[in-house]
Amino acid sequence: MRPSKRQPDEMRAISFERGVSKHAEGSCLVKFGDTHVLCTASLEERVPPWLRNSGKGWVTAEYGMLPRSTGDRMRREASSGKQGGRTLEIQRLIGRSLRAVVDLQALGEVQITVDCDVIQADGGTRTAAITGGFVALYDCLKWMETRQMVSVQKVLKDHVAAISCGLYNGTPVIDLDYDEDSSADTDANFIMTGKGGIVEVQGTAEGEPFSEEQFAALMGLAKNGIARLVNLQKMAIA
Amino acid sequence: MRPSKRQPDEMRAISFERGVSKHAEGSCLVKFGDTHVLCTASLEERVPPWLRNSGKGWVTAEYGMLPRSTGDRMRREASSGKQGGRTLEIQRLIGRSLRAVVDLQALGEVQITVDCDVIQADGGTRTAAITGGFVALYDCLKWMETRQMVSVQKVLKDHVAAISCGLYNGTPVIDLDYDEDSSADTDANFIMTGKGGIVEVQGTAEGEPFSEEQFAALMGLAKNGIARLVNLQKMAIA
Amino acid sequence: MRPSKRQPDEMRAISFERGVSKHAEGSCLVKFGDTHVLCTASLEERVPPWLRNSGKGWVTAEYGMLPRSTGDRMRREASSGKQGGRTLEIQRLIGRSLRAVVDLQALGEVQITVDCDVIQADGGTRTAAITGGFVALYDCLKWMETRQMVSVQKVLKDHVAAISCGLYNGTPVIDLDYDEDSSADTDANFIMTGKGGIVEVQGTAEGEPFSEEQFAALMGLAKNGIARLVNLQKMAIA
Amino acid sequence: MRPSKRQPDEMRAISFERGVSKHAEGSCLVKFGDTHVLCTASLEERVPPWLRNSGKGWVTAEYGMLPRSTGDRMRREASSGKQGGRTLEIQRLIGRSLRAVVDLQALGEVQITVDCDVIQADGGTRTAAITGGFVALYDCLKWMETRQMVSVQKVLKDHVAAISCGLYNGTPVIDLDYDEDSSADTDANFIMTGKGGIVEVQGTAEGEPFSEEQFAALMGLAKNGIARLVNLQKMAIA
Amino acid sequence: MRPSKRQPDEMRAISFERGVSKHAEGSCLVKFGDTHVLCTASLEERVPPWLRNSGKGWVTAEYGMLPRSTGDRMRREASSGKQGGRTLEIQRLIGRSLRAVVDLQALGEVQITVDCDVIQADGGTRTAAITGGFVALYDCLKWMETRQMVSVQKVLKDHVAAISCGLYNGTPVIDLDYDEDSSADTDANFIMTGKGGIVEVQGTAEGEPFSEEQFAALMGLAKNGIARLVNLQKMAIA
Amino acid sequence: MRPSKRQPDEMRAISFERGVSKHAEGSCLVKFGDTHVLCTASLEERVPPWLRNSGKGWVTAEYGMLPRSTGDRMRREASSGKQGGRTLEIQRLIGRSLRAVVDLQALGEVQITVDCDVIQADGGTRTAAITGGFVALYDCLKWMETRQMVSVQKVLKDHVAAISCGLYNGTPVIDLDYDEDSSADTDANFIMTGKGGIVEVQGTAEGEPFSEEQFAALMGLAKNGIARLVNLQKMAIA
Repeated sequence: MRPSKRQPDEMRAISFERGVSKHAEGSCLVKFGDTHVLCTASLEERVPPWLRNSGKGWVTAEYGMLPRSTGDRMRREASSGKQGGRTLEIQRLIGRSLRAVVDLQALGEVQITVDCDVIQADGGTRTAAITGGFVALYDCLKWMETRQMVSVQKVLKDHVAAISCGLYNGTPVIDLDYDEDSSADTDANFIMTGKGGIVEVQGTAEGEPFSEEQFAALMGLAKNGIARLVNLQKMAIA
Repeated sequence: MRPSKRQPDEMRAISFERGVSKHAEGSCLVKFGDTHVLCTASLEERVPPWLRNSGKGWVTAEYGMLPRSTGDRMRREASSGKQGGRTLEIQRLIGRSLRAVVDLQALGEVQITVDCDVIQADGGTRTAAITGGFVALYDCLKWMETRQMVSVQKVLKDHVAAISCGLYNGTPVIDLDYDEDSSADTDANFIMTGKGGIVEVQGTAEGEPFSEEQFAALMGLAKNGIARLVNLQKMAIA
Repeated sequence: MRPSKRQPDEMRAISFERGVSKHAEGSCLVKFGDTHVLCTASLEERVPPWLRNSGKGWVTAEYGMLPRSTGDRMRREASSGKQGGRTLEIQRLIGRSLRAVVDLQALGEVQITVDCDVIQADGGTRTAAITGGFVALYDCLKWMETRQMVSVQKVLKDHVAAISCGLYNGTPVIDLDYDEDSSADTDANFIMTGKGGIVEVQGTAEGEPFSEEQFAALMGLAKNGIARLVNLQKMAIA
Repeated sequence: MRPSKRQPDEMRAISFERGVSKHAEGSCLVKFGDTHVLCTASLEERVPPWLRNSGKGWVTAEYGMLPRSTGDRMRREASSGKQGGRTLEIQRLIGRSLRAVVDLQALGEVQITVDCDVIQADGGTRTAAITGGFVALYDCLKWMETRQMVSVQKVLKDHVAAISCGLYNGTPVIDLDYDEDSSADTDANFIMTGKGGIVEVQGTAEGEPFSEEQFAALMGLAKNGIARLVNLQKMAIA
Repeated sequence: MRPSKRQPDEMRAISFERGVSKHAEGSCLVKFGDTHVLCTASLEERVPPWLRNSGKGWVTAEYGMLPRSTGDRMRREASSGKQGGRTLEIQRLIGRSLRAVVDLQALGEVQITVDCDVIQADGGTRTAAITGGFVALYDCLKWMETRQMVSVQKVLKDHVAAISCGLYNGTPVIDLDYDEDSSADTDANFIMTGKGGIVEVQGTAEGEPFSEEQFAALMGLAKNGIARLVNLQKMAIA
Repeated sequence: MRPSKRQPDEMRAISFERGVSKHAEGSCLVKFGDTHVLCTASLEERVPPWLRNSGKGWVTAEYGMLPRSTGDRMRREASSGKQGGRTLEIQRLIGRSLRAVVDLQALGEVQITVDCDVIQADGGTRTAAITGGFVALYDCLKWMETRQMVSVQKVLKDHVAAISCGLYNGTPVIDLDYDEDSSADTDANFIMTGKGGIVEVQGTAEGEPFSEEQFAALMGLAKNGIARLVNLQKMAIA
């Protein structure tokens, strides 16, 4: 039995609160149970140097955790003078995942930065950030569409969402919270589109190596879960 | 007339939401109008080197702004590799202000770190951070009292709260929002205790120098405003 | 009685030595007793990015302490890799104070950087830096006037000087040295113009909060002291 | 057809040169075609703080690229002042992969650092680093066994090796070189043990999302390739 | 007798392996006994800011040591966040030495960066780096000549090579290895051209000060050694 | 003829002003013409880690230039976040030179840090720093001797001083100022003891390589100059 008492294929309560920022062109407070991530999408005129005068735009992401979003207070990265390896790894992942469903040519030569700041952490912050970041990105594009800057339909090729799965006491389970994650044997993150295409998979054996069959079971759970997340995204932006 | 249509002595809607963090020993989401600051108070065993084996504790503060808490997206300080001068100045001020009402001997050899993270900014973030940080600190001490670690009454000598005042078109006004702050001639911050003692005053002429009389008028506004803030704190923690 | 044996309203011996740098357009070694600050004003063609092509200039300041300017050797900031919060706070204050008496439009699109390096510290380094920095700035503008670049009279709107005051054993005293500063209850810095206008005030309770009346007494002392400092500046540049 | 003219399931020429460092306890120059990585394993007495007095040891890795290991010269990370996100991500991956086959208790309270420095890059540097790093680690443990410090058989639970696979023009291919990698649609890295257990999988869609079936095909290629790499490791250390 | 059993005027086995990098325009793996340095010369279009539109080019160098090139593992400079003083000093020396034989006008407005990375260290890494860096530079210029970009004869004014000499137990010896260097009384590096002109000399007393005569003896050894090195360079590039 | 109108063997006016710092255990403002360096020697209890419990002490140096000590204002190293290569090179040189005349065993387990801050630069700052740093070090040891901590005679084995020489239009000259240094063909620094032993020599060809004879001529000039500097040191500390 899972510490959270959930069924193996049962995700936590998921919610999207849009328009939470007075300033950002798009914003979304996403909750996967007790994991809360504030996502804002900011439109900027300038693009990275390698895209200047290319007519193409860029979507990038940054990730951070408030110092006391976690059980023990973490050192503030601004104070320690650099972003750690885990932070850089996650924000690169979020950026790649969102770009997978964006037509950068149709976006035009602007940059959208999606900031994902973890207000409270309880496992699965990167999957929540991608799933909620998509909603913030959508709202930013809608904001631009209202001003005749883009056509959302042309820029956004599909939905994208993410979920973690893992082997807990040998059983494949979905959407691990912190307690489950800490003692899981295997931890995997899946990022897929609305049509079911895979954008990124990452699986890590925390203890014993896992088998191809076990990984397939995790992927099966993830496919169903992401289909549900995409539905929730659609309801949220309807 | 003020851009916000408020009377010169009228503060914005003020609210304190306690217990907003699952993990922190004390927490408070404070709102001064559209300025929203998440304050958490974290208890740690270790004290700064100069207090080791002194029997005395420490209260310190850190301050940060989410990149899109502002009208234009700011660069993330964790990414630029250092905290700016304004950030350091503000977090030193918050720490000093909170320590002014704490008996560090009665606290015992522990450290409480009050993190003040600006979720949304519309002027007056430092005054909101001090005023809300006090509530988070209070709740942290209450948490400790429940565990027989301290007596709140002995540690907390008084309330502390802060407000900004300024000369707007020559008129002294209280609790400036961003639009008012941007065009004010003089900007002053006042930090006072529940008994009306002054903990810190800072006044800056943005344009023309100001007179002693004008400064006294700002201080008069501040005294009334802080008395109201202390009342609101008392109601919040009742 | 003060440790320095001075009367409450008695400042230390003040002196300005102009032209101490072979290279700088303006320079002044200012002494407030044993506090010695070397101020140089450097003229540069380039202005900060936000002023380019605006026709307006800029005055900024940097502050540093030699490692052994203090009783115990401090770590060199160049070696520790960053300027501390106190340094940033002080240099921002010096810059704001000097700009308060400069017409940036009349200056034209150039930048003057006033470097204030503490050769020897004995309390009141920031007030000495502002007071001496003004003289270095004046000489830099004179240098420019000689070359038909500006009119000093149009650029410099007034004098500016600064002094610290504090409550020592309950008594308001002026121009605290290090020993007095270390045990004062309240520490305040005042920055005023030649005409008596207030540019900046900062007051901090080190121990008990202070009252409005006490603060007014400190301001009274400061007004007289700054009037004297301005006279000394005038004699120095005559 | 692949740019390298290789068959889809054909790896590049693989070689391991042991004992290439006069100083390191274990070392291996591994070549996957034109990708050359120098791996050294260094034994140190001190372990990370969280393991002190635990009786357990640690295996960690660092990764770097010589500035001209690549087609265009890259900026030296020592000179730019920090390791980039990609570097941190790769060295974390190498460390996790090697630890997956090490019994840290049996190792005892020492640390082995495996440095993987890319002398020449042509795609697949991280998989070469893991595969060659294992050989360097093995030799370091042998060095320790000779000195009665450990039993290699007890410390090393299995072999570990890694290979990249990808979809090139829709066809699953193994061990991509730089030209192939640059234009592949999907890029995946597989890390497995000698017994065929999976330690880590990472798959990324560079262009279009990929399907579950496509990913299974890549994994099938990887299983065979890694079995061959493990055989080559066994021959190298025989 | 020297620990290396060599005669006082006997250098270690010297070798130059050219073309060791697939990517670099020029490259050379130089060995002075067990000291191995990989030198690559990279051609870049952009020159330092102060040379833009001057028609003149630049030759610069960077130096690094692999973490386990030494007896004890050193901390990776990329990880510690800065290049140490010794590194900066050596790479400045290499750059100056190579520029001494280059006609920057004849080179034209391009930059050549010579990276010298120590694969294995056993004393004398800086002298090996200069001597081998010259060969890499030569090959880079040859590469350019083949493409009608320069005339090697016009750009390269002479050969340049370097050797260390020292007083070991009072006896002047040449080309010290690590064991000899560690216990030498005086350590000197000489950098000379093919025609015997001196480009740079540096001599340091490690223990007792040395005399003018002793220094002259070291220089005598160096002159012969460098003449031999230049011959070896000529054979290598023939 | 030299730009300074001096004879080839004529040094600038040299002066040592002792006791210029209220706080430092030893201090000296040294002037070589318009080059002014403030040297302070600070006694500290703690020694570097590798000397703990060895009974031996350490002498180290730090070097800095005030931003406007030079003709054009330089960027403040504390603000740019690191000490440049030139700074590190010079402060390592100063430290080595002073240690050459100190018996670290006789000093006992303490550290003396000699800070050399250039107040005004006109060429030869490093040689002035060494020559004046010796006087500050001497006074620090005297301060210690007064407190029965050391015997100056046992700790200080000799005097040490430094001078630059160079080839100016082919003529060997001593003690180059900035104008001379900028156009000299060869620049050399010599550091010698009171007994005439050589502690360090560094010679660099700025343009054409130089010959052994030319270098000997520079050394001859230096020997006489340093003998004079040592005499001046002796008169200063008498």
